[in-house]
Amino acid sequence: MTFSDRLAEAVRRKGPLCVGIDPRWESLPAAYRAGRHLPAEAPEMAELEHPLRAAAIVGGFVTRVLELVEPYCGVVKPQAAFFELLGPAGTAALQGALRDARHLGLVSILDAKRGDIASTATAYADAAFAGCKIDGQTLPVWDADSLTINPYLGRDAVEPFLTAAKAADRGTFVLVRTSNPGAGLFQDLVCDGKPLYRHVAAAVAEWNASTLGACGLGDVGAVVGATHPRELVELRAAMPDVWLLVPGYGAQGGTAADVRAAYRADGLGAVVNSSRGVTFPFHPDDPDWEAKVVAAAQKAQAELRG
Amino acid sequence: MTFSDRLAEAVRRKGPLCVGIDPRWESLPAAYRAGRHLPAEAPEMAELEHPLRAAAIVGGFVTRVLELVEPYCGVVKPQAAFFELLGPAGTAALQGALRDARHLGLVSILDAKRGDIASTATAYADAAFAGCKIDGQTLPVWDADSLTINPYLGRDAVEPFLTAAKAADRGTFVLVRTSNPGAGLFQDLVCDGKPLYRHVAAAVAEWNASTLGACGLGDVGAVVGATHPRELVELRAAMPDVWLLVPGYGAQGGTAADVRAAYRADGLGAVVNSSRGVTFPFHPDDPDWEAKVVAAAQKAQAELRG
Repeated sequence: MTFSDRLAEAVRRKGPLCVGIDPRWESLPAAYRAGRHLPAEAPEMAELEHPLRAAAIVGGFVTRVLELVEPYCGVVKPQAAFFELLGPAGTAALQGALRDARHLGLVSILDAKRGDIASTATAYADAAFAGCKIDGQTLPVWDADSLTINPYLGRDAVEPFLTAAKAADRGTFVLVRTSNPGAGLFQDLVCDGKPLYRHVAAAVAEWNASTLGACGLGDVGAVVGATHPRELVELRAAMPDVWLLVPGYGAQGGTAADVRAAYRADGLGAVVNSSRGVTFPFHPDDPDWEAKVVAAAQKAQAELRG
Repeated sequence: MTFSDRLAEAVRRKGPLCVGIDPRWESLPAAYRAGRHLPAEAPEMAELEHPLRAAAIVGGFVTRVLELVEPYCGVVKPQAAFFELLGPAGTAALQGALRDARHLGLVSILDAKRGDIASTATAYADAAFAGCKIDGQTLPVWDADSLTINPYLGRDAVEPFLTAAKAADRGTFVLVRTSNPGAGLFQDLVCDGKPLYRHVAAAVAEWNASTLGACGLGDVGAVVGATHPRELVELRAAMPDVWLLVPGYGAQGGTAADVRAAYRADGLGAVVNSSRGVTFPFHPDDPDWEAKVVAAAQKAQAELRG
């Protein structure tokens, strides 16, 4: 089954909500931060040095959040930066989050915005998908269903990711129009009569064309922010067979109405990400934080399906 | 002492050579791959599971390479992708490489090409420089002297990196014109009469202007490939006070004559990277690999100083 068809199945079953996993330490429930939910089978964890302990706490929180949101979303997007910030043990926690997502039947998008050239790009892509080959053995690293990538370095920087994704039935999401206020500094520059992001969109449409699955969409997706509703309309039309990953819904200001333009007539074609809005709708001291996460996920699912 | 002044001191002492650390498993000396150089104080390492063992072997090789090249270069550039490919233990090996570089008095450039928005960019930047703040404690993560960053996401994606670098007296190198053959797909698009990479160069010059050190150069550098000698001339002129990180010399085809245009009249202004050419100038079975690394570093230093 291709990546695009697995994504289509997830969206048909549970709607377009993608839950972003951005575990900021200061936002965690106070009981977690105090170590009261460290794995029972590892009581000695409290005595390990601080970074290992923090990463274990974050890992435990992420596992719980994934269980809570699973009934309401088919797709999750862990943000690599917040795990990287916890050092090697954080990297292990990110592996755990991606493994948990797989066990729960969730499609994963590793949001790492990687981009480099030639064999370096292949190293990142192997880390994301097939794993590390050492003396005939293959060791899994991230084992993610898909990865976000940055197109600035050009054709031969993107292609190693596409090749590695194809070989492992995985997908990519190429940054086209990002959701931040200052995104336009380069993305909006007009070249040959159209903005840079439209040139990137044209390249994505071309890369995607040979990867269409039974659902009619392909394995090379595009990141298009919900905070630019006009561009969303324009880019949906420019890339009719491309899955859009739409960040910026919820806490960043995009509404369910804003993102409607991202869907195709068949209801497929977009996954809409909410991170803080779903995973941190509570004060750290709130003992009912789990109920608030469930309610936020339920509400976002209903809004986006409506 | 600012980052730019530390870099100037390194270049004055040892010339512009930067040695890139890209530890590809299949290129390592056979004796390392067989585990014959695992740390003596950890003989049980051979019994650890495979990824930890591979990362320990890579870490040991990198430590030795840094010792070998240190007399001939003032700057080293570990490539994050090849460490990431080894999982959490690889991440620890990268921390070790950056720590070794610091102990040897080498200026480090963490080549991770990070780029994201707002608090996510801050998380990457904190990982690179100041470390992770947890309940009043700060845990070092990469502790690199500088970091490569990707500008595609625009102003508010770059600025968190600049802010974090300034607060910790560190530097950044923004991708402007990369060394790969397909770099032009987007970088060469002409907007308002000049190619995209010139727009990025103008932004870098502006960001750099407020960070000048005693050496007359600033803390916000630019990546400009040696494989585009004409652009190198043009970009040196467009960013007179900006440190250039010049990849593509050596194995990628750029010559010492090609990169000369990157230096300012005072001999400062550029660090020129060679990775494979210096660190893997041997066949894996060659017992004299250390002598070959020393000779390659010596030759590159002399060529670039000449």
